Formats: sequence, C-alpha cells, structure tokens
Amino acid sequence: MQVTLVHVRVVPGQEDAFIEATRRNHEASVREPGNLRFDVLRSADDPSGFVLYEAYADDAAAKAHKQTDHYLAWRDAVAPMMAEPRRGVPYDGLFPRAGS
Amino acid sequence: MQVTLVHVRVVPGQEDAFIEATRRNHEASVREPGNLRFDVLRSADDPSGFVLYEAYADDAAAKAHKQTDHYLAWRDAVAPMMAEPRRGVPYDGLFPRAGS
Repeated sequence: MQVTLVHVRVVPGQEDAFIEATRRNHEASVREPGNLRFDVLRSADDPSGFVLYEAYADDAAAKAHKQTDHYLAWRDAVAPMMAEPRRGVPYDGLFPRAGS
Repeated sequence: MQVTLVHVRVVPGQEDAFIEATRRNHEASVREPGNLRFDVLRSADDPSGFVLYEAYADDAAAKAHKQTDHYLAWRDAVAPMMAEPRRGVPYDGLFPRAGS
C-alpha cells in the first residue's frame, strides 16, 4: 500500500467550494482500479486545513490517478483556492498488508 | 468518522521492534467496535518516521480504544522507543461519509 498525505490550506471563505470539488474527486477516485483509500479530512483545530489520505495498491495505480479526468478537473478547480502550495508526503503502508 | 494522525519518530535501531509492537496493536484495533481504519505508515523519506492513521465512527469508540489492553500494552512497549514525544493531530472525516 502506497500512501500520500496531502496537506492543504485553503483561502478563508473557500472552504465550502473546496469541499464540494474534493467530494467529486473522492467519489470518482475510490472507483479507480488499485485505489484503497481516498479519505478527505478536515482539521479539528483549523477549519481551513484539510488532509487528503490517498492509498493505492502500487506506484502504477497512484501515478494513473494523476492522469484521470477527475483529478485534472479537481486540480484546476482548487488551484485558486490554495492559501499556500499543498504538500504531499509519501509513506509506505505497513499494515494492513497487501491483500488483507 | 473521527480521525487521529499520530506522528511518531523512533530511536534509530528501534524501528523493527516498533513495527512488531504496532503490528499487534493494529491487528487487535481493527477488531474494535467502531474502528474504521488503523493503518500503519512508514515515512518514505525517514525510516525512523511513522504515522498511525486511526479512524473511528465516533468519539466514544475513539475513547474506548485508549482503554483496551492492546492499546495499553502498545503504549508501554513503545515508550522507551520514542525519539521524541509522539504527536496526535485530530481531524473530522468528511468523506467517505458515515455509513458509506
């Protein structure tokens, strides 16, 4: 399981628009082959702070996500909402193990 | 869905012991009522860096985790392995929605 935590801070006032655009990305992403998680989190302490928790079975599936229409639409939709560049942090998923 | 991202850095050399203790915690935690995720991640950039991604259906289920034998055993086992105090960051899970 290959995971990226994407840390996002949006311009105050753009939260609802970001959530709506990200809901659409979530709904399509979880149907991609090889997608294991696409959870959208909002900071409990900062209403403008979000994390996308994206897990794929392998590197090829993660890379394929970046080529999908829904990812590209999301990328363009949220570009003007970013208060700062978003930051993707890569992890190797240890547990659950692949296939479990 | 209530989420905590627990950021951990272990003392170099203690990684394998931490992974083994955390595997036991993972296996028991995913069987708790109300547990939705208990993913164990290792930083792709820092072999001593880990994140526990813990998601529960509600606050009561999250609190109950801290009372389980497996949590308490993990807490005691890993205490001497910590290179710095671990840091739990709380989030509200927006998607997937509860029940989906």
